[in-house]
Amino acid sequence: MSPNDAYISAPADIRTPDGEIPANQPSWNRQRPSSMPVERYLSFAEEVEDISLPDRTWPDKKITSAPQWCAVDLRDGNQALINPMSPERKRRMFDLLVKMGYKEIEVGFPSASQTDFDFVREIIEQDLIPEDVTIQVLVQAREHLIRRTFEACAGAKNVIVHFYNSTSELQRRVVFRKDKPEIKKLATDAAQLIKTIAADYPDTNWRWEYSPESYTGTELSFALEVCDAVVDIMGATEDNPMIINLPSTVEMISPNVYADSIEWMHRNFARREAIILSLHPHNDRGEGIAAAELGYLAGADRIEGCLFGNGERTGNVDIVTLGLNMLTQGVDPQIDFSDINQIRSTVEYCNQLRVPERHPYAGELVFTAFSGSHQDAVNKGLDAMAARIRPGADNTEVTWEELREVTWEVPYLPIDPKDVGRDYEAVIRVNSQSGKGGVAYIMKTDHGINMPRAMQPEFSSHVQSITESEGGEVNSKNMWDLFAAEYLDRDEVLEQVSVKVDNSVEDQVSVSATVVHQGSEQAISGTGNGPVSAYANALESLGIDFGVLDYTQRARSAGDDAEAACYIFADVNGSKVWGVGIAGSTTSASLKAVTSAVNRAVVGYEPQGA
Amino acid sequence: MSPNDAYISAPADIRTPDGEIPANQPSWNRQRPSSMPVERYLSFAEEVEDISLPDRTWPDKKITSAPQWCAVDLRDGNQALINPMSPERKRRMFDLLVKMGYKEIEVGFPSASQTDFDFVREIIEQDLIPEDVTIQVLVQAREHLIRRTFEACAGAKNVIVHFYNSTSELQRRVVFRKDKPEIKKLATDAAQLIKTIAADYPDTNWRWEYSPESYTGTELSFALEVCDAVVDIMGATEDNPMIINLPSTVEMISPNVYADSIEWMHRNFARREAIILSLHPHNDRGEGIAAAELGYLAGADRIEGCLFGNGERTGNVDIVTLGLNMLTQGVDPQIDFSDINQIRSTVEYCNQLRVPERHPYAGELVFTAFSGSHQDAVNKGLDAMAARIRPGADNTEVTWEELREVTWEVPYLPIDPKDVGRDYEAVIRVNSQSGKGGVAYIMKTDHGINMPRAMQPEFSSHVQSITESEGGEVNSKNMWDLFAAEYLDRDEVLEQVSVKVDNSVEDQVSVSATVVHQGSEQAISGTGNGPVSAYANALESLGIDFGVLDYTQRARSAGDDAEAACYIFADVNGSKVWGVGIAGSTTSASLKAVTSAVNRAVVGYEPQGA
Repeated sequence: MSPNDAYISAPADIRTPDGEIPANQPSWNRQRPSSMPVERYLSFAEEVEDISLPDRTWPDKKITSAPQWCAVDLRDGNQALINPMSPERKRRMFDLLVKMGYKEIEVGFPSASQTDFDFVREIIEQDLIPEDVTIQVLVQAREHLIRRTFEACAGAKNVIVHFYNSTSELQRRVVFRKDKPEIKKLATDAAQLIKTIAADYPDTNWRWEYSPESYTGTELSFALEVCDAVVDIMGATEDNPMIINLPSTVEMISPNVYADSIEWMHRNFARREAIILSLHPHNDRGEGIAAAELGYLAGADRIEGCLFGNGERTGNVDIVTLGLNMLTQGVDPQIDFSDINQIRSTVEYCNQLRVPERHPYAGELVFTAFSGSHQDAVNKGLDAMAARIRPGADNTEVTWEELREVTWEVPYLPIDPKDVGRDYEAVIRVNSQSGKGGVAYIMKTDHGINMPRAMQPEFSSHVQSITESEGGEVNSKNMWDLFAAEYLDRDEVLEQVSVKVDNSVEDQVSVSATVVHQGSEQAISGTGNGPVSAYANALESLGIDFGVLDYTQRARSAGDDAEAACYIFADVNGSKVWGVGIAGSTTSASLKAVTSAVNRAVVGYEPQGA
Repeated sequence: MSPNDAYISAPADIRTPDGEIPANQPSWNRQRPSSMPVERYLSFAEEVEDISLPDRTWPDKKITSAPQWCAVDLRDGNQALINPMSPERKRRMFDLLVKMGYKEIEVGFPSASQTDFDFVREIIEQDLIPEDVTIQVLVQAREHLIRRTFEACAGAKNVIVHFYNSTSELQRRVVFRKDKPEIKKLATDAAQLIKTIAADYPDTNWRWEYSPESYTGTELSFALEVCDAVVDIMGATEDNPMIINLPSTVEMISPNVYADSIEWMHRNFARREAIILSLHPHNDRGEGIAAAELGYLAGADRIEGCLFGNGERTGNVDIVTLGLNMLTQGVDPQIDFSDINQIRSTVEYCNQLRVPERHPYAGELVFTAFSGSHQDAVNKGLDAMAARIRPGADNTEVTWEELREVTWEVPYLPIDPKDVGRDYEAVIRVNSQSGKGGVAYIMKTDHGINMPRAMQPEFSSHVQSITESEGGEVNSKNMWDLFAAEYLDRDEVLEQVSVKVDNSVEDQVSVSATVVHQGSEQAISGTGNGPVSAYANALESLGIDFGVLDYTQRARSAGDDAEAACYIFADVNGSKVWGVGIAGSTTSASLKAVTSAVNRAVVGYEPQGA
């Protein structure tokens, strides 16, 4: 590989930790204190509060049905893009979300951006919102913004007005410089105003969502007080509940603490029955998925997030991964992910950001196993599934459609790639880390070459010697070329020009052949109980002593014609080698396999004679 | 934006979920069953076992010190690369890991790959392994591989031999076709053999690690039985403990269940004191970080993973994010992350894979806030920190070095970008989603233009009108150009040619100026109690009625010279506009600001007259 331009010399600015090993550290641990400025950071318990819920119940629960999803790609996702979506890209994202099955879609912040305002008008006026889809619009708790928001939504059938104000200790102190009652009043004033203005728009089915923004930095008792007050003002009821969204605006602590906080809120709301409890995790600590799942166990009803986790900074929680995690547990996500490549390419186009190679379910490399033992296990897992369909069958003897009829149980692959529209062809790649399982799999699947188990180490070490000396990956085509050059296209010692096989006498086969042996054309003949032994006998006249040690004849399952493949393990003048022949008939294939073995054996000898 | 080639037409293959709404679903949820093949997947409880630990203690614990880290980039990471590392790339990765402070480094699988074998020999023979660093090598529980492994490590001072065999129910059944006693015997035979062979290499300080591979698919009682048997055979003691590594080889369930399993093992090991309990999470469900953190709370001592989460499929757990998550809680990771850009570029070079834009702490976009309210809050957070350094100071009046002396408390930024060697300049970008806070921040930080608060909406709506019509991002340079064109480089109505200010009379200033007004050069003069009022009086002779509504004079804090900037809000013939002047003296700046306001006001009138 040529050096990468992004790499800039040695890591000179990194200072190896070199303080005294802490006294309480076990002797086997030789790590030393670093010079990272630990003293600048407070623990979550010091910074916000020490959440304690010893009688939590969420760790004993399981997810058994999908939450109400809300996709916020067009708002929280869009506002975090280097190039916010054009109207055309917004339309495409909206259409995708609708098609996948999302019924609540946050479409913008119309009071803050003319582009968002125009987009909301466009989908309303062009009647692009299905009957059963509710659009959601975000607005800060301020009068002129609220009025503008209602203007944007006029004429829509179903709308969630999502209002928020920041309630965290830090934001109260440094951003708003207001005390708790003043912050609470921002929320309750906005609630009052929204209720009043909504009366001017009676034709829309309005619903309400309130977020105590930066909830994760807010003392729970204060978050509860503000939310309860808002629920009261909005007059939410069990039959007409409002959404209370508790965002992990910044992910500040591990997801078990977030879940504890959600369970505490869930238990303590004054009127829980009037509330749809919603989560909105971000991913600053890389734990957004876990925060959503544990928070859902803790009592939430609803999850807001973005496709593939786009969003501010490290992103919103990824609602694709959440949905497919549910599928792997036999829970219907109520969203269609059956064509994940299409979903990914649409999202990449809309966001102008790539979904990374290792992104769960959607990344280019996630259905790939490079290591030999993983490849072997995948292959055997597929075989076991095949045997459930037809006893004794391996995975080349059933169709992918048949495999999709049985329970998925394959090591190292938590989901059948076909279930998200991806291909098995990508499952296995072969490089210097791969073992025989991967080589055998590719040869069988892509080329119909179902090598006998005993032959696999020979060919795979040949492949590995190539990958180790040349580096990189051997793709399916390269592997076929290596195979053909090594076994099929060989005539350096012995070339078959023509062969005639006569089996008119019972239990006896005669072979007459014209061959080129070491450069000179010769006619040879022999008899035996089959074509292989007859041809082997004929070879004796050339000084070739050919003994068959193992013999396998298999239909070649790929390719245009149903060809025969013959694999012979032979002792040729003392050298033990495999030979392979492929032909339209089993007889021709077996004779070619003999010729292949002879050429390989003699070539195999040459280095020793040199 | 031009369409992206990767985008392929409409999402035609996605089937909107359209089954009957489930009867138990609340009426506000209109989601429908999808056609995803839910019936093919078993829950974790059905597939493996229903782990129950009602008296778990981990959710009440906190992380207070770093675990023993083990970096497996050169083995588990390397085996998952499209292009496995060349010897040169391996060396660079090894050097980086050593430099950062990792003391246990898995360097390869020498019995499975000649490249790995050669690399292990290279670092031993060239004496590249520091005294306090232990290399670790992986090997399957098979005799010839174990022997080869010891050959690879001969002469090293400290080595962990890491042996494994798969113990999961699925692999026992479909891959190995062995029952529990046979699988256990693979492990104990290997343990016995390793102990025996090690006796031939007395010069190395050997340590042992055993992994029941695919632990997450193994019944806990069986995993425990195998591990206890291995610990017994290896003769591990409290003074010489061995590592038992419990890998989430495939992440199969949410991290709380993994943590429960770890706590159960932790409590039930026959000889816990003789064990270093190690975690090795993968990221198939996107929850590897959470699995590591919760598993660590549950009793583990050690975590294996890769920088930025490289590794099979979705990757190993990311030990960079784990380390920096600890830092944000005031816990020393014992690893140096102070130059994360350098670490990232080295890893990208070695792995030939990019670290994505939204990767925690290291991604290009994670210290960026596009939205106006976030930008405003960041700015105010920095101001509050500045005021702790010097009462009354804002963040432009302190240095970054000073800011690094106080506790980090900034909304939306869980870590000070400077603490990982990144820049504040990247914190805020401005596009159509941005509000006045971001515009004001950039102008102040990069250009020393500390606009009065009342002026910010005027200029930011100008910036927003440009970003909305043209799309994309306004970088710092573009923003300066917009500012200069709008406020500074204006002479279409009034151009100052020369100005003379006389303040020799107490409490009175006289201004005599030569100006070009609407194309013709004229001499004007006036007096007042300061230069602005004097110049304003002079303008009356040109028919310009100039009244000052607000006046702010500030030093321009950026740039080569200490210039003065003057911001005047004026009523010019009934039009209310801001004008800005920048000059070496405060007097010149204020006169320029008057001229700026006149030009902007008249231009402001033109459209109405047209």
